[in-house]
Amino acid sequence: MTKVKDIGEQGLLARLHRFCSPEIIGDDAAVLVTEPEQSLVVTTDMLVDGVHFSNLTTSPEDAGWRAAAANLSDLAAMGAFPLGIAVGLGLPGDLSVNWVESLYQGMTECLQKYNTPIVGGDVVRSPVTTLAITAFGQVHPSQIIRRSAAVVGDAIVVTGVHGASRAGLELLLHPQSGQNLNAEQKTALINAHQRPQPRLDVLPILEKILNSQSKVVRLSETEVSNLKSKIPVAGMDSSDGLADAVIQICRASSVGAVLELRQISLPTAFDHWLTPEQALEYALYGGEDFELVLCLPQQPASALVEHLGEGAAIVGRITPDSTILLHDEQKKFPDQVLTLSQGFQHFGD
Amino acid sequence: MTKVKDIGEQGLLARLHRFCSPEIIGDDAAVLVTEPEQSLVVTTDMLVDGVHFSNLTTSPEDAGWRAAAANLSDLAAMGAFPLGIAVGLGLPGDLSVNWVESLYQGMTECLQKYNTPIVGGDVVRSPVTTLAITAFGQVHPSQIIRRSAAVVGDAIVVTGVHGASRAGLELLLHPQSGQNLNAEQKTALINAHQRPQPRLDVLPILEKILNSQSKVVRLSETEVSNLKSKIPVAGMDSSDGLADAVIQICRASSVGAVLELRQISLPTAFDHWLTPEQALEYALYGGEDFELVLCLPQQPASALVEHLGEGAAIVGRITPDSTILLHDEQKKFPDQVLTLSQGFQHFGD
Repeated sequence: MTKVKDIGEQGLLARLHRFCSPEIIGDDAAVLVTEPEQSLVVTTDMLVDGVHFSNLTTSPEDAGWRAAAANLSDLAAMGAFPLGIAVGLGLPGDLSVNWVESLYQGMTECLQKYNTPIVGGDVVRSPVTTLAITAFGQVHPSQIIRRSAAVVGDAIVVTGVHGASRAGLELLLHPQSGQNLNAEQKTALINAHQRPQPRLDVLPILEKILNSQSKVVRLSETEVSNLKSKIPVAGMDSSDGLADAVIQICRASSVGAVLELRQISLPTAFDHWLTPEQALEYALYGGEDFELVLCLPQQPASALVEHLGEGAAIVGRITPDSTILLHDEQKKFPDQVLTLSQGFQHFGD
Repeated sequence: MTKVKDIGEQGLLARLHRFCSPEIIGDDAAVLVTEPEQSLVVTTDMLVDGVHFSNLTTSPEDAGWRAAAANLSDLAAMGAFPLGIAVGLGLPGDLSVNWVESLYQGMTECLQKYNTPIVGGDVVRSPVTTLAITAFGQVHPSQIIRRSAAVVGDAIVVTGVHGASRAGLELLLHPQSGQNLNAEQKTALINAHQRPQPRLDVLPILEKILNSQSKVVRLSETEVSNLKSKIPVAGMDSSDGLADAVIQICRASSVGAVLELRQISLPTAFDHWLTPEQALEYALYGGEDFELVLCLPQQPASALVEHLGEGAAIVGRITPDSTILLHDEQKKFPDQVLTLSQGFQHFGD
């Protein structure tokens, strides 16, 4: 097994070049062309072996995919299309070169799906494997999605099911669990955990809907462009859980929310496996589903849910209150205030 | 002493916000406005405790300054003006909060000098202190400085003295050395090591000179703009040493070079302290001087050296050979082929 120390940092860099954009190699920095009138969006993630990933539960391919997906999801959460990523790697000398190549393989598999090149990076020695990813994207200023833009009356949209990633992790950690699930269901849940999909596909659909909403009243192109910026969309991704996303948006926008418990989309496999309490716990606090949680007026919200189809849903509305209430229209559960420090397990039991 | 684990990642982030651009806080990613017709330049550095910095030789303030300076220097080496940096931090729980604040203090002292905001980042737990910096800049496509653009006949310009940073390190490691130096000289050399200056100041001067060279022949604005892109400047910074910079440029441009040994600018303090061999060893292989090494036609090269003044010099010329020759016009040293693997110590002894 060839180790990193056997070929050195330069040798490793030479091997990793095949994963990178060919234009960028051999200068002090990478040059990227941005389109006119676009703002630049930047996001950074640090991932440390034993803290954020581990060979015990995650293959290097999956660690690479997940790291890339998380950063692309942060761009999507801002309304931005990706331009490229830069990758900083800290590696112990004893690490196998295969491991590093597999990490890059997984990373580029995800990136290629979204036409995103690796445009630069750095490889250094470190006692602990560390991955630092910085992703760049571009967005027209009128289409920036901010956490702070939610207004009272907005519908809260989720772009897909929640809880699948957490359920997939459970199946990986405890292979004996989920005995009522068939092989296909298990694979789908594990896949949701190992290969999450950043929801960049939502952005052009959202743009089209906001445009057509403006056109209903027969406005000129300039007026449409003005109006577009007057339908601000608030949102973030649900990487830290659906509850966290709604709470962060409400805090940043100084509003409250009511979430309709029965509207939160769950994987159908949960019916055969989890109690309603467990299912909601996974959906609200599980995290890493990388869906978008968006707040926008009712009419475009309905159109968006219709266009996105399966899993997309209006799960609540923005209120003038200072609390985020979880409400059960079937009144099986009493109303509950959502907080970051409490999980759903403190609820129904 | 408050430790990182005492206040947690969120507590630490709150404390570090005062060093960051106020607009960027509280969303999934930072938004930056780029000017039209500018290309985006991106560079990444990973720094690991015990590998790239150490509390034994470097205060956290200096580690922060040097990390910021190195990244700004990479932008300068591409001809780009900085837009902002993103900072990823991996921190052991036992690290003092003071240390982290001092690191940021040093980093922002350097950044503020060049009007560069911290526009984002990530703070995570790690068994080893790790700093990942990604810097963004912008440059007009006609003004990109590339390693690969050197042509036969170009003059090789250094923007300042070389060897000062290595000499400063020597004084820090062996305080008993440099006994012939006065306090002012020692302070200047140590300062060159602890607080290197990225040469962003060179860029507007270079632009002005290239413009005025074009105007001598009374061209229209459009013709000037076309011509500007026809005086390509090759270059990189001397962070890994002057010898390394010349070798990298020659490799990337498929050319050779002759360096005139007596033209390489050295700190005057070297006269009272180092042998000529030691002085050249520091200048060629010491590294971390963060000067620019630029290749351009003789006339603008002379004008640039004249404008920059002290320390700036034409140190050689680009040749059609495949070797980089170190030549002594006083013939005290025989001609020597420069390589990356050999230091100057193998030369005169």
